[in-house]
Amino acid sequence: MKRKIIIDTDPGQDDAVAILLALASPDEIDVQGIVAVAGNVPLALNVKNALRVLELAGRPDVPVYAGCERPLRRRLVTAEHVHGDTGLDGPDLPEPSIRPQTQHGVDYLIDMIKTHAPGELTICALGPLTNLGMALAKAPEIAKRIGEIVLMGGGYFEGGNITPVAEFNIYVDPDAADIVFRSGVPIVVAPLDLSHMMQATPARLQRIRSLGNRAGQAVFEMLSFSERFDLKKYGTEGAPLHDPCVIAYLLQPNLFEGRRINVTIETGSELTMGMTVADYWGVTGRAHNCFFLRSGDAEGFYDLLTARLAKLP
Amino acid sequence: MKRKIIIDTDPGQDDAVAILLALASPDEIDVQGIVAVAGNVPLALNVKNALRVLELAGRPDVPVYAGCERPLRRRLVTAEHVHGDTGLDGPDLPEPSIRPQTQHGVDYLIDMIKTHAPGELTICALGPLTNLGMALAKAPEIAKRIGEIVLMGGGYFEGGNITPVAEFNIYVDPDAADIVFRSGVPIVVAPLDLSHMMQATPARLQRIRSLGNRAGQAVFEMLSFSERFDLKKYGTEGAPLHDPCVIAYLLQPNLFEGRRINVTIETGSELTMGMTVADYWGVTGRAHNCFFLRSGDAEGFYDLLTARLAKLP
Amino acid sequence: MKRKIIIDTDPGQDDAVAILLALASPDEIDVQGIVAVAGNVPLALNVKNALRVLELAGRPDVPVYAGCERPLRRRLVTAEHVHGDTGLDGPDLPEPSIRPQTQHGVDYLIDMIKTHAPGELTICALGPLTNLGMALAKAPEIAKRIGEIVLMGGGYFEGGNITPVAEFNIYVDPDAADIVFRSGVPIVVAPLDLSHMMQATPARLQRIRSLGNRAGQAVFEMLSFSERFDLKKYGTEGAPLHDPCVIAYLLQPNLFEGRRINVTIETGSELTMGMTVADYWGVTGRAHNCFFLRSGDAEGFYDLLTARLAKLP
Amino acid sequence: MKRKIIIDTDPGQDDAVAILLALASPDEIDVQGIVAVAGNVPLALNVKNALRVLELAGRPDVPVYAGCERPLRRRLVTAEHVHGDTGLDGPDLPEPSIRPQTQHGVDYLIDMIKTHAPGELTICALGPLTNLGMALAKAPEIAKRIGEIVLMGGGYFEGGNITPVAEFNIYVDPDAADIVFRSGVPIVVAPLDLSHMMQATPARLQRIRSLGNRAGQAVFEMLSFSERFDLKKYGTEGAPLHDPCVIAYLLQPNLFEGRRINVTIETGSELTMGMTVADYWGVTGRAHNCFFLRSGDAEGFYDLLTARLAKLP
Repeated sequence: MKRKIIIDTDPGQDDAVAILLALASPDEIDVQGIVAVAGNVPLALNVKNALRVLELAGRPDVPVYAGCERPLRRRLVTAEHVHGDTGLDGPDLPEPSIRPQTQHGVDYLIDMIKTHAPGELTICALGPLTNLGMALAKAPEIAKRIGEIVLMGGGYFEGGNITPVAEFNIYVDPDAADIVFRSGVPIVVAPLDLSHMMQATPARLQRIRSLGNRAGQAVFEMLSFSERFDLKKYGTEGAPLHDPCVIAYLLQPNLFEGRRINVTIETGSELTMGMTVADYWGVTGRAHNCFFLRSGDAEGFYDLLTARLAKLP
Repeated sequence: MKRKIIIDTDPGQDDAVAILLALASPDEIDVQGIVAVAGNVPLALNVKNALRVLELAGRPDVPVYAGCERPLRRRLVTAEHVHGDTGLDGPDLPEPSIRPQTQHGVDYLIDMIKTHAPGELTICALGPLTNLGMALAKAPEIAKRIGEIVLMGGGYFEGGNITPVAEFNIYVDPDAADIVFRSGVPIVVAPLDLSHMMQATPARLQRIRSLGNRAGQAVFEMLSFSERFDLKKYGTEGAPLHDPCVIAYLLQPNLFEGRRINVTIETGSELTMGMTVADYWGVTGRAHNCFFLRSGDAEGFYDLLTARLAKLP
Repeated sequence: MKRKIIIDTDPGQDDAVAILLALASPDEIDVQGIVAVAGNVPLALNVKNALRVLELAGRPDVPVYAGCERPLRRRLVTAEHVHGDTGLDGPDLPEPSIRPQTQHGVDYLIDMIKTHAPGELTICALGPLTNLGMALAKAPEIAKRIGEIVLMGGGYFEGGNITPVAEFNIYVDPDAADIVFRSGVPIVVAPLDLSHMMQATPARLQRIRSLGNRAGQAVFEMLSFSERFDLKKYGTEGAPLHDPCVIAYLLQPNLFEGRRINVTIETGSELTMGMTVADYWGVTGRAHNCFFLRSGDAEGFYDLLTARLAKLP
Repeated sequence: MKRKIIIDTDPGQDDAVAILLALASPDEIDVQGIVAVAGNVPLALNVKNALRVLELAGRPDVPVYAGCERPLRRRLVTAEHVHGDTGLDGPDLPEPSIRPQTQHGVDYLIDMIKTHAPGELTICALGPLTNLGMALAKAPEIAKRIGEIVLMGGGYFEGGNITPVAEFNIYVDPDAADIVFRSGVPIVVAPLDLSHMMQATPARLQRIRSLGNRAGQAVFEMLSFSERFDLKKYGTEGAPLHDPCVIAYLLQPNLFEGRRINVTIETGSELTMGMTVADYWGVTGRAHNCFFLRSGDAEGFYDLLTARLAKLP
């Protein structure tokens, strides 16, 4: 059965690859729309990058909405040091000719969830959770209608990336993340623990480049750019790859292993702000609220990614 | 010049009196609409109470909008122990025959602010600041267009009422209050310090009842009911009167004395959650973000209130 | 019956006056010793000031102990802006010729409490509660043997003095204060609410100077110096007088009015750090842990103080 | 050169093994004394267990001191679920015939540090850091005289054991840990990350039992008991072994790999209370305050442990 999804995102090279993976999988995934959010770079750039990626994929028909331009409560933190000034440095993608929709992304989310059958829509969240948090706060009744939220965010064994203990997406808007994790919506978490197993090694990137198509070349250039920061930091052969795990999980969940646990978001202390306190060992008695993907089959994942990207222009 | 206002409220007996005071002052105040919010009682009751008050005042033309039904992030706390199960116990007001609008209160706020000239609209906030916080988060550009937010909330010398240090409106949604106080919008705060000077003594309530009109009788019955809790708690002659101070400030600002200070909302510690940390003595160096009304002329205030209520049916 | 006390202090002009008041009341109070603590100024200066005050009072026999030179956990904050560089600016007191004891003040407290009958010793705490907190942590069994801790610290209606909500003594070592307030020892709190009623007006200071003795002259000069800061800040006729309230309470408790309540110390949030969250209205259900002096008879207090100071050299 | 150490401990089976390892290495380590602290079980039991271990090792000459019986500020949490009701369940060790010293453990620490040359004494901390934190607070001047604190506590990649993010020793007294980590004393941290690499597998325990001496048999029985909890929890072949890593590091530092980093203790949020926020990747700019042992050579470690235990009776 085809899964209807909305992608909530701040592209970002790895967000872009995730979008491409979804668009390259029309038999399994029906991308209803894309909602941008402030995160890796400011909102306007993320909107533009989403449009660019759609044009790259030859899918100008997918509507793009601008969501929130800042976190609920905290000052926006961005990550140009990783993603470059455009947020999508690497390939030389032209200015998009298509335009975003005028409806606010939060209202688009609410309307779509309300007009689909309960459980029908999956939200893939690849950036800060501001839009989802705001939608749940504005229209709490949607919580019971969302099929699943599959999100990239947080970490447990790998700690954090923007602070020692917080991952960027959650850190940028911990208040929104807290709303989402307390909402009762079924959640699948693709954390840093997973990303770090999915290293974008030179060989894997080269396979994608060798596809010879426009998408493969762009993905190669994107990831070659964005992995510089982590390669220097971690000294590994390839950088972690984050957001495409979310889409890969929809396509082939058996590539991943996880556990049903409780995750609670730290919102009260600056030192640990935005940490996903994951009760992986079940020591707290807190009720399970997510399926936490701890590990995955990296070869299988890159095989899937490469095979699908081959189907794009 | 007539001031255009929107009243954001959870009526609430004292909210009701504030609304009546505004409607009784058409030469100075033009009530554009009322937005309800969850607070004293759940949202649906607050909407109904707003409609009841409009009918009581003979103003069914004023549109009422339902805003947020829960705080941004925290579980809703209500105050039936003060206001009764309906939120407006005391007078026997009929079921309203008018209906609320269908637009979400947050979007109504955003639209109104965007379609009025910068500075033209004043928001009078008599309940938790959820709607305003959400509006500012969803559409941050409105911050520069709001003329002023005049709100009842917080306290300094009087401490709190729902906890030792937190006042109910701020405590219910400290995250929203934090957004509002950091927004840069000009804010006037009518805190508990002021309410406690405006005691609804038997003589003052009797004067209102003696007006002989329907509104005077209803106000007498409302306040007679709602002051029971505080009279028992504080042992004073009359209970504090809160929300009408907001409207009275618009009508006769010279009745009040205040100081430009910084107020920062505690959102990180449960013990002091929702406290308005008011730098009344200027010891912190934090930038001023509000005008904090410390005291007022109680006789003048009740004279004004009584005279205006006399103009209602 | 004569009360045996130990004074734990960081003198400080008002601490000095409190010590003098105790020493001038030998019929009611037997000062066993003085323990200094870091606070208004660093420890070494506070030790020296305690010695100076004893010599001024003609009581070189009272032993002085140096306690902790820094708070349990936090960096020391001092208040030279109020008390001057020596901590006791104002009068020109000579270098002391007597010497402090060598035992650590914390061990002195523990030993004295253990070697007196349960309930026999009262601790008068006029500075940060570091010594007491440390003694209670090192030897928890003393909690059941302390007769009473009468302390100057905190505030409710008056807020704070070092931050908008925290009083200096508690703010300097909130962790120690937390230990003390959770210890189960009977506690009497003389807060800012009380100090602010005991204004050292020119007339009152003049009466003390007119005593014509050395102590009266010194007290006049001390308080004339230390009140400058508060007079400028509050614009009142006289500055609040803090620590002598503790001793006056021992001498004439009927001068004061208070209430048994719970006080909990904020230790978790920087914004409200060191606040004494006083459940004055009994809204939390937390168990009473102190007697909180809200108000006092200022004329009676200054009469007592003046009469007693007259008995000193 | 022989290293003079004091062991600060709450034995605890793994503490006991660490003590035995130290006593079995007289050529490298000179155990000056043992200080007990409340932790795994209440203080009195930990004192008794320390005495038992000394008798087991045939070293009744080593003096034992009782330190603090509760954490600085928080209620004591114990771990009988891991260590059994005696804290040292497993072997059937007789009641000790030797007695502890009468001096308070905190004062013993202070005196020893003051009477040794600067840098001469190493403190091996195997339990909550209450004694050390109290000593540093009572006599801050000792910070410059301690050669090194080598402690078992905290974790980064392995998260926590008592909560999802906090390790037991630090969690029991985060305030004391905070004092220690801010003290400026050179610190080596043996965290859970290291313990989890040092699995006490059946084969390794069997080797120790096969030594045939009393100590080997007792260690076998101790660890067989204490590892039950973790084996069930983690499902690994052997349970992590914690405290002996501290002594092994003194004996053969080249068995371990680590990194100089900053560790800051979470003391402000209950959710993450007692977490060692380890800036392993250097993203915060906070100054280095410890050497954090991330990994070790498990075979080499068990070889060392087994060889040394063979030297005991």
